[in-house]
Parts: sequence; C-alpha cells; structure tokens
Amino acid sequence: MPTSFRHWTNMNKSKTRHESECTMTEMVLPNDANIIGNLLGGRLLHWIDLAGVTCATRHAESLAATVMIDAVSFKRPIQVGNIVVLKSYVTWTGKTSIETAIEVYAENPYKGERSFIQKTYAVFVTLDERGQKIPVLPYVPVTAEEQAEFMAGEQRQARRIAPLSLRA
Amino acid sequence: MPTSFRHWTNMNKSKTRHESECTMTEMVLPNDANIIGNLLGGRLLHWIDLAGVTCATRHAESLAATVMIDAVSFKRPIQVGNIVVLKSYVTWTGKTSIETAIEVYAENPYKGERSFIQKTYAVFVTLDERGQKIPVLPYVPVTAEEQAEFMAGEQRQARRIAPLSLRA
Amino acid sequence: MPTSFRHWTNMNKSKTRHESECTMTEMVLPNDANIIGNLLGGRLLHWIDLAGVTCATRHAESLAATVMIDAVSFKRPIQVGNIVVLKSYVTWTGKTSIETAIEVYAENPYKGERSFIQKTYAVFVTLDERGQKIPVLPYVPVTAEEQAEFMAGEQRQARRIAPLSLRA
Amino acid sequence: MPTSFRHWTNMNKSKTRHESECTMTEMVLPNDANIIGNLLGGRLLHWIDLAGVTCATRHAESLAATVMIDAVSFKRPIQVGNIVVLKSYVTWTGKTSIETAIEVYAENPYKGERSFIQKTYAVFVTLDERGQKIPVLPYVPVTAEEQAEFMAGEQRQARRIAPLSLRA
Amino acid sequence: MPTSFRHWTNMNKSKTRHESECTMTEMVLPNDANIIGNLLGGRLLHWIDLAGVTCATRHAESLAATVMIDAVSFKRPIQVGNIVVLKSYVTWTGKTSIETAIEVYAENPYKGERSFIQKTYAVFVTLDERGQKIPVLPYVPVTAEEQAEFMAGEQRQARRIAPLSLRA
Amino acid sequence: MPTSFRHWTNMNKSKTRHESECTMTEMVLPNDANIIGNLLGGRLLHWIDLAGVTCATRHAESLAATVMIDAVSFKRPIQVGNIVVLKSYVTWTGKTSIETAIEVYAENPYKGERSFIQKTYAVFVTLDERGQKIPVLPYVPVTAEEQAEFMAGEQRQARRIAPLSLRA
Repeated sequence: MPTSFRHWTNMNKSKTRHESECTMTEMVLPNDANIIGNLLGGRLLHWIDLAGVTCATRHAESLAATVMIDAVSFKRPIQVGNIVVLKSYVTWTGKTSIETAIEVYAENPYKGERSFIQKTYAVFVTLDERGQKIPVLPYVPVTAEEQAEFMAGEQRQARRIAPLSLRA
Repeated sequence: MPTSFRHWTNMNKSKTRHESECTMTEMVLPNDANIIGNLLGGRLLHWIDLAGVTCATRHAESLAATVMIDAVSFKRPIQVGNIVVLKSYVTWTGKTSIETAIEVYAENPYKGERSFIQKTYAVFVTLDERGQKIPVLPYVPVTAEEQAEFMAGEQRQARRIAPLSLRA
Repeated sequence: MPTSFRHWTNMNKSKTRHESECTMTEMVLPNDANIIGNLLGGRLLHWIDLAGVTCATRHAESLAATVMIDAVSFKRPIQVGNIVVLKSYVTWTGKTSIETAIEVYAENPYKGERSFIQKTYAVFVTLDERGQKIPVLPYVPVTAEEQAEFMAGEQRQARRIAPLSLRA
Repeated sequence: MPTSFRHWTNMNKSKTRHESECTMTEMVLPNDANIIGNLLGGRLLHWIDLAGVTCATRHAESLAATVMIDAVSFKRPIQVGNIVVLKSYVTWTGKTSIETAIEVYAENPYKGERSFIQKTYAVFVTLDERGQKIPVLPYVPVTAEEQAEFMAGEQRQARRIAPLSLRA
Repeated sequence: MPTSFRHWTNMNKSKTRHESECTMTEMVLPNDANIIGNLLGGRLLHWIDLAGVTCATRHAESLAATVMIDAVSFKRPIQVGNIVVLKSYVTWTGKTSIETAIEVYAENPYKGERSFIQKTYAVFVTLDERGQKIPVLPYVPVTAEEQAEFMAGEQRQARRIAPLSLRA
Repeated sequence: MPTSFRHWTNMNKSKTRHESECTMTEMVLPNDANIIGNLLGGRLLHWIDLAGVTCATRHAESLAATVMIDAVSFKRPIQVGNIVVLKSYVTWTGKTSIETAIEVYAENPYKGERSFIQKTYAVFVTLDERGQKIPVLPYVPVTAEEQAEFMAGEQRQARRIAPLSLRA
C-alpha cells in the first residue's frame, strides 16, 4: 500500500469518485467570446475552476478553495453557439489537499460533432467557515484506473510542491 | 399508434432521449442571490431556460428558441454556496416544436444533502440561420416511461395551444 | 363580500395597486441574445421575475421571494437593439402570498413600433430578515377591473395550490 | 421664436416629450454594491446612461450614442435591497444632438420611503447603421415648463461646446 | 501658503501622487458595446468611476465612495476589440474629500494607434466600516504641475459645492 | 546568437517589451468572491488571461488567442475589497507564437500592504480576421534580463510542445 493512502486509513468516513463527480454544460454566448466569435481562454479557465471547485466542495462537504491549477492547453478554438461540457472528478486526496481532473469537450450542435479539448488537474484545500484549512475527507479509488490515477496524482502533487531546483 | 408519431415516420433520421440529454451544474454565487442570500427566482429561470435550450439545440442540430415555458413552482429557498443541478431531456417533438423536461435539484454540500426542487416543461422551435422555423428531427421514445411521457407531452402541447375558452 | 377579502379586513393598513405598480425598461444588448441576435428566453424570464419582485417588495414593505410563476409564452422573437418594457402590478393578496401581473411589451425604436408580447402572473411570499414568512399587507382593488382581477387571482391561486388530481 | 427652434421647422415630423419618456426600475443587488453594501457610483452612472440612451433612441427612431454627460452628484448612499427609479425625457434637440434629463430616485421599500437623488443632463447624437451622424427629429416642447427647459437646454449646450476660455 | 493646505499640516502622515496612482487596462468585449460595436458610454463611466475609487481607496487606506463626478465628454467612438487605458491619480484633498483625475486613452491595437479620449475629475469621501465619513489623509503635491493642479482642484471643489445661484 | 532569434531577423519591424507591456488594476467586488469573501480562482485566471491577451494583441497588432497557460499557484487568499494589480509583458516570440509573463500582486488598501501573489507564463497565437494564424512580429529583448528571459522562454516553449514521453 503506497504511503499516500496512509493518512486517511484511521478516519471513519471516506468517499468514492462517483459521490462527487460533476458534469457542467455551458452554451457559449456572445459575451463569452472575442471579436471573431471564439471563446475567450479566460472564460474557459473560469468554467474549469468552477467545475473543480464544485466537485471538491461535494467531496469535502466543506468550503474548497483553488490553490493550484496545472498547465492548460487550448487545442482548438471553440465558437459562439457551441456547447462546452466539463466533467470533473476527484483523483487524489492528501492531508489537506484534493486533486481533481477536469475534462473539457466542445460540441458543434449544428453538425452533431463533439471533440475532446483538454484535461487539466487542479488542487484545492478545504476550509472551515473562518477560512482555516481543515483535514480532507479521504478519497477511495475503487477501479484499477482510479487507483492508477491516484498514484499518478500523488506524484503530480510531489512535483508541484517540490522546490524549483529539484523539479525534473 | 398515436397521430403524434405520424409526422416523422417518413424521415430518415431520428434521435433518442439519450442523445441529447444534458446535465448542468451551477454553484450559487453571491451575485445570484437576494439580500438574505437566497437564489433569485429569475436566475433559476434563466438556468432552466438554458438547460432546455441546450438540450433542444443538441436534439435539433440547429438553433432552438424558447416559445413556451410551463408554470414553475419554487418549493423551498436555495442558499448561496449551494449547488444546483439541472437535468434536461427531450420528452416530445411535433412538426416544428420540441418539448423538454427540466428537473432541478439543490444540494447543500456542507451537509451532504440533495433535494428535488421542481420539474418544468418548456417548448422550443428550431430555426435556421435567418431565424425561420424549420422541421424538427423526430424524437423516438424508447422505454415505456419515455413513451408515456411522449403521449403526455402531446396532450400538454394540445392544451398549451388551445384557445383559452376551450382549456379544461 | 368574497371570502378572500376577509383575512385583511381587521388590519389597519392596506394598499392600492397604484402604490406599488412598477415600470421597467431594458435595452436589449448583445449579451442578452443568442447567435442570431434574438433575446434569450431566460433573460426575459429574469426580467419578468425582477419586475414582479420589485412590485411585491414595494407592496409588502418587506422582502419578497418568488414561489410560483405561471406559464410564459414568447409569441415573437425580440431583437438586439430593441427596447423591452415590463409593467408589473399587484392583482391579489392572500394571508402570506402576493400575486402580481407582469406585462411585457417590445419596441423596435427604429420603426417606432411597439407590440404586446405577453402577460404573466407570479406569486411571492413576504419574508422577514431571517427568511421567515410574515403576513402580507392587504391589497385593496379599487376599480371594477381591479376587483375582477382580484377575484380571478383568488381562483388562479386556488388552482395553483390544489392537488394535481383535483385540477380541472 | 428663438433660433434654436428654427432648424426643425421645415421638417415634416416632430415629437413631444410624452412620446419618448422612459421609466427604468432597478433592484440594487449584491453585485451592484461595494463591501459595505452601498451602490457603486459607476453602476448608477451606467443606469443613467442607459436611461438616457433608451429615451434618445425612442425619440430619434435611430441609433443614439452618448457624447456628453453633465456633472453628477451622489447626494446620499443607496443600499443593497433598495429600489432605484430613473425617469428620462427629452429636453432639447439641435441639428444632430438630443439632450435628455435623467432623474434618479431611491426607495427603501422596507420603510416605504422614497427620495430624490439627483437630476443629470446627457447629450446624444443619432447615428445611421454605419455609425454616421444623421439629423435629429425635432422635439416640440408643449407646456410652459417644457419650453423653459428647452431654452435652458439650448444654453447648456452652448456652454458645453464653447471653447474653455469663453466659459462663464 | 494657500488655505487649502492648512487642514492637514497637523497630521503625521501624508502621501504623494505616486503612492496611489493607478493604471487600468480594459479590452472592449462584445458585451460592452451597442449594436454597431461602439463602447457604451455607461460602461466607460463605470470604468472611470472604478479607476477613481481604486486610486482614492489606495490614498485613503479606507473605504472610498463617489460623491461627485464632473462632466464627461466622449469625443469619439471606441470600437469592440480596442483597448481602453485609464490613468487615475489624486489631485486634491480636503477635510473629508479626495479629488482624483481620470484620463482615458483608447488604442486600436490593429493599427498601433493610441488616442487621448478625455480627462474627468471625480470626488470621493472616505468612510469607516459603518459608512461614517472620516478625515482624509492629506495629499502632498510635489512638482510644480502637481501644485498647480492642487490649487485648481481647490477651486473646482469650491464651485461644485457653491449654491447654484453663486456659480459663475 | 541562438536559433530562436533567427526567424525574425529578415523582418522590417520589431518591438521591445516596453511597447506592449500592460498594467491592469481590479477592485475585488462581491460578485468576484466565494461565500467567505475570497476571490474565486477562476475569476483571477480570467484576469490573468485578459492581461496576457491585451499585451499580446498590442505586440502583434492583430488578434491574439490563448493557446497555452502554464501552471498557476494561488499562494494566499485575496479578500473582497482588495485591489489586484496584474502586470503583463512579452518574454518571447516564435514564428507564430507569443509568450507573455503575467505577474499578479494583491493590495490590502486598508493596511497599505501589497504582496506578490504569483507569476505565470501564457502563450498566444496571432490570427487574422478569418481566424487563420499569421506570423508574429518579432520581439527584441534589450536588457540582459530580457535576453535571459527570452532564452528561458524558448526552452519553456520547447518543453510545452514536446511529446509527453520526451518531457523531463
């Protein structure tokens, strides 16, 4: 059993991915776009963050605040009138941190086309009502895929918090 | 076979409920609420309409515009910080109209509670790029429940467009 | 005297329609519209709710929250650049409920045209600062038209709160 | 007859104040306010401009763009939850300019209080679809008060466009 | 020494223009514009107010609320896609008032052009957390230009608060 | 001379960092925050993207669209009422890509405190009016610091576009 599992084994409650996963659907409206009708990167980042926060809040059953978001790559433009679907789910939990994945899909409904845009990881801490960090309810990966993602998440987090000089 | 099925039997393409159903998730933020922190009715109506439009657009593979929304009842207040989940799906199609149901759920994530708020039906027409009505791709109810909903939808629509004097 | 008048005859203060009626005027801006420049149904619903809330708040002299909105029919598209006028006024009050009518008009100022779009009824409850229901200040219909509307409002409300099985 | 009336006496159409006057009503929501719950000055300025634009557009039956807004004085704070009413009406027209007055009132609906906040004048030009200035439909003041306002408007406009060195 | 300097000479702390000046940059997006793509006057007024509030808040180290904004003249239309730059800085302080200047520039980035649009003065009061007026930290003009602006500001303020009958 | 300089040596025009650097200032308003009054991560990401887009648009003198944004770390919460300052500047250009740095600072104006929050790099492509990529005007680093940043930018970009399997 990897060390990352250790810190929550003594807790009475835990949650699976299914209990907090989240689907957001957004219609791209004119005010979300630039002058040639392409979705603004910042607007998509805002949705990615909200999808992650919502999922982390559900998992934690307390307030969740974004502390880190991994690099995001916008592989193709998304047009006004298209539909953006965001799927978010917990991938890893530490003592006070929750990592979620956020997958973004864009649909051109007029052509019945749907394409994968990108997948990002973001890390949240859970806070009480005074804004103080509190322990995170442990996440229990169930399937083999979820367990692999959990261990990869542990490594991603180690790299995120390593001093710059030690990063590969 | 009810007459409402007739008008699309000659068309080459049709769609099931699964192909267009939609899940929207919204975190209730301070700007969505009144001065005691309750979600504004109009903000929820805006989300209900968007959930319906998105589903109707997906079904139609063309522009969809709201023409009617049935009565909405707000059974309990929804607080800032809560999560609203909207599920929308096609229930009936006519020659140029699509009826969708929109179900609204509210979650208090801090207590792990989720409750059903209401279910509304809304009707959309499909438009081409010049804003002219175009025929609707037929919807095919598959399960017994979907077929019952379809026939109920046909009756709801008949009542909506009846002269006031004839309404039961 | 109809029973609906009874519950406020012992109160010291009452109000007429004139004291709370409200006119809202909105210029349809690009961010209120879909990709062919038609006002989004949800945006109009948001304005309808605000017009009703404002009028009910004025009447009640306390917080008003939407509990029901009757069916809305969007009879024609409203274009970006047009002006939307909403007129709202109290039509009926019960023990803890206020019914308001909201009339919507659209103007194409470039042609000097103004057309009636629709009339909707919405019901509000009045709340104190802790969100608890409080008695509604009685509304006094004055003209014959206002009295007819009041009695019709009583019937509409009876139908809204009837068990589904008993609705005509 | 003052010279300011001259330039429209040869035109076939004119309009009175009644034909374009406008009432806007806004509920002050949390996102309109600063951290102690007072309406932001800039938000009120935005509403003042919209009230003026709407009235000028109605009068002109063409696009109207703001060119000048006179000084605005915010005499008292307006709280979240209050209702702001704006009344706008044409006061003067020149060859290509329309002056409108915008009166602002604030209501505390919980106390049944309504107070006058301020009155501002703003000047608009009318544009065709390519953004070129076009002649303004003349405004005809009818009552003695409207005629006095018209002549005062002519003087205000003369002062606005005078070289700084010549201003009284 | 002019009288306007007197009221802060006994205070222990003062600030220069450099310590609170502010640069705001805004990309004009579709939702900021009218139907021919020109920035709405009210949207620019909102930015002007925010630029002034930010600078006054920085100077005061307390809450600042807009009390007066001088006349604004929009000399040319600003198109969607252009960049608006606002520069704000303190020009004068009184006992409880701060005057700031706000300069507006518009850039057409596609042509590398930048033009001066206008300069406005706005007056703010500083408030404590209960919304009560508090004394303003004195502003110390340093350069000859700043000192000239300070004395002009004193005169502008005298004119703003003079009874209408006494204004030149 | 590094290879990255090569591709623009034949072009007639180039730009320095000074010509496109950008300062954005934002007052954190209630609608930018979560229920305990902390700035939403997604709102800050939206501002970071806008700061980068504005700077890239200025440099390119054409439309700029976000293609990649590096990881962002939110080191401390930013409260409602605080002031956020974003500084963005070009750090590297390739054939069709512009890298900008975006530095974020937060000020608590009530305490006169200002702190560095984070620095992010984002990459943009320049587009013509039909949304097609066009060559980027070369950026000329002038100071030793700018030249070091340029070479580091070249390496960052090489890592961003490397196949995952080859990333260090």
